[in-house]
Amino acid sequence: MIQTPYLLFLGDAPDHLAAKVAQGIKDWNPDVAVGQLRMDGCQADVGLPDLTLEEAKAQGAKTLVIGVANRGGYISAAWKEVIVEAIRMGYDVASGLHNLLREEKELQSAARVNGRTLHDVRIPSVAYPIANGKKRSGKRCLAIGTDCSVGKMYTGLAMDAEMQKRGMKSTFRPTGQTGILITGGGVPLDAVIADFMAGAVEYLTPDNDPDHWDHIEGQGSLYHVSYSGVTMALIHGGQPDAIVLAHEPTRTHMRGLPDYPIPSLEDLRDMVLPIARIANPRVQITGVSVNTKALADADAEACLKEIEDRMGLPTVDPYRHGAAKLVDALADI
Amino acid sequence: MIQTPYLLFLGDAPDHLAAKVAQGIKDWNPDVAVGQLRMDGCQADVGLPDLTLEEAKAQGAKTLVIGVANRGGYISAAWKEVIVEAIRMGYDVASGLHNLLREEKELQSAARVNGRTLHDVRIPSVAYPIANGKKRSGKRCLAIGTDCSVGKMYTGLAMDAEMQKRGMKSTFRPTGQTGILITGGGVPLDAVIADFMAGAVEYLTPDNDPDHWDHIEGQGSLYHVSYSGVTMALIHGGQPDAIVLAHEPTRTHMRGLPDYPIPSLEDLRDMVLPIARIANPRVQITGVSVNTKALADADAEACLKEIEDRMGLPTVDPYRHGAAKLVDALADI
Repeated sequence: MIQTPYLLFLGDAPDHLAAKVAQGIKDWNPDVAVGQLRMDGCQADVGLPDLTLEEAKAQGAKTLVIGVANRGGYISAAWKEVIVEAIRMGYDVASGLHNLLREEKELQSAARVNGRTLHDVRIPSVAYPIANGKKRSGKRCLAIGTDCSVGKMYTGLAMDAEMQKRGMKSTFRPTGQTGILITGGGVPLDAVIADFMAGAVEYLTPDNDPDHWDHIEGQGSLYHVSYSGVTMALIHGGQPDAIVLAHEPTRTHMRGLPDYPIPSLEDLRDMVLPIARIANPRVQITGVSVNTKALADADAEACLKEIEDRMGLPTVDPYRHGAAKLVDALADI
Repeated sequence: MIQTPYLLFLGDAPDHLAAKVAQGIKDWNPDVAVGQLRMDGCQADVGLPDLTLEEAKAQGAKTLVIGVANRGGYISAAWKEVIVEAIRMGYDVASGLHNLLREEKELQSAARVNGRTLHDVRIPSVAYPIANGKKRSGKRCLAIGTDCSVGKMYTGLAMDAEMQKRGMKSTFRPTGQTGILITGGGVPLDAVIADFMAGAVEYLTPDNDPDHWDHIEGQGSLYHVSYSGVTMALIHGGQPDAIVLAHEPTRTHMRGLPDYPIPSLEDLRDMVLPIARIANPRVQITGVSVNTKALADADAEACLKEIEDRMGLPTVDPYRHGAAKLVDALADI
């Protein structure tokens, strides 16, 4: 686990999108960060107080989280100066970048000398077991997308937040770098060795109270040939009780695969159910989460209504309208 | 690629089963090995000439292949003496054991001093790409099992052997340790990082002549929750034109998962087809390969006939009766 609270490092982010990890942390776990650290020329602002390393330290910050991505995911010389200074002051450092903190000599040696920890959340830190398929107690919900990057993480985070608000027992279970940095723990599933993928998901979602819900972060898509194996391992390792279909209605082809059409929600439903029943015969599809970001208000409303009528399932954009409807649908599971 | 010809090391195998890797090499690629090397007390014999390291060297052997597994997959002190001696004499060494050659200091230093290569085929030696899903030329056949260990590798090897016999263009494409040692190359798919599984299969089965068949070694099962993600990546990375269903009729539950029933061949067919059509809309299921090892002759015949009638697909035990029927079924693909 990554020690909290965080100071979010925005570096010299060239635009707001470059700081989307920091924005995700601010949106979904705002209390975890005491502030943001921006270098000269930084064009991003996640709306937290601007603090120096010293000021944040005085407010209790324990980990400097790299909340920004360079083009290519590398760690620039200018960043390194700041990060080394933070390590000297007693900060741990956490990053989800492709280029690893531990592979930068200055950072590694500063961490060793100062007894601090470098968290590269892109790399697994646990030797996961092979999945045993045993039925676990507690309940699990998984979002399954028609494509990659259609809002599966946001769906899980929004459902967890709604349950927390209602005083229900609920945990968001991250399977990707951003989710891990948001919550401080999880499994970087795309970096796990093939034989241990489903076991890593079992490890992530252990036995729990009968009325506790795990919201497992989805990855990839059964219809995305590059990553479908990861999605499969999530379904069979996660043994979900409830599946929410996730969709982006304006996509014209699978992300990065121009020759591959987006499946219909009906096709996805018909494919996922028999697969999911192998691990949990009682699984149900309980709703549809639509990412309507690209649509104007009226068009979004019409799109949601059309899908809800067609599929006969509660349908909502959780980012636009909250996840209450998706949580309501779990009442009888 | 592993240099050939091989000398097969059987060590002090306590029984014949312990030498099944050597037996697989002898069965499927007998010309690749000049002989076998057995230590005192060895209880296995794959039927090749017994040769010393010196004798095999004189016959041109270039690689000592560890064709035996200890309980626990470790490399004993007695083995190490022989292996170090082989390295000193100029042999490369290849192994599919869990314990890696490269992690044994004596072996690593002997290899370094003598400029020899240690092949740990359990570990990928290539940085595989992320799958791009592009349609490749040539044809591909993949065996998909109702369970793990039902004869998928033997099915692919037997179909390849039958095509070679007929003078057809054909290559067996290994995805597991035994297959890699049999042919000298391949992808150890269960050890590949999740994000690169499908890309590794694309790498393994590149563009080829329009009338060339790749027989891709299957892994796991869509119905085996521990490994289904690996099977999924094989289907979407392999984009097979033909699928052979593989089955073991006496299995009572999924291997290692006592609570999981074996699916029917009909259920497997209905699940795999829509999945495989995502990567190759023209895919067909062309036959059923049944492992009847546990059945007497008459029972095996009856079992094959019953499945053939029920499924309406050419059905055979390729180990018992050859793969001609399965190859015939590919004529119109």
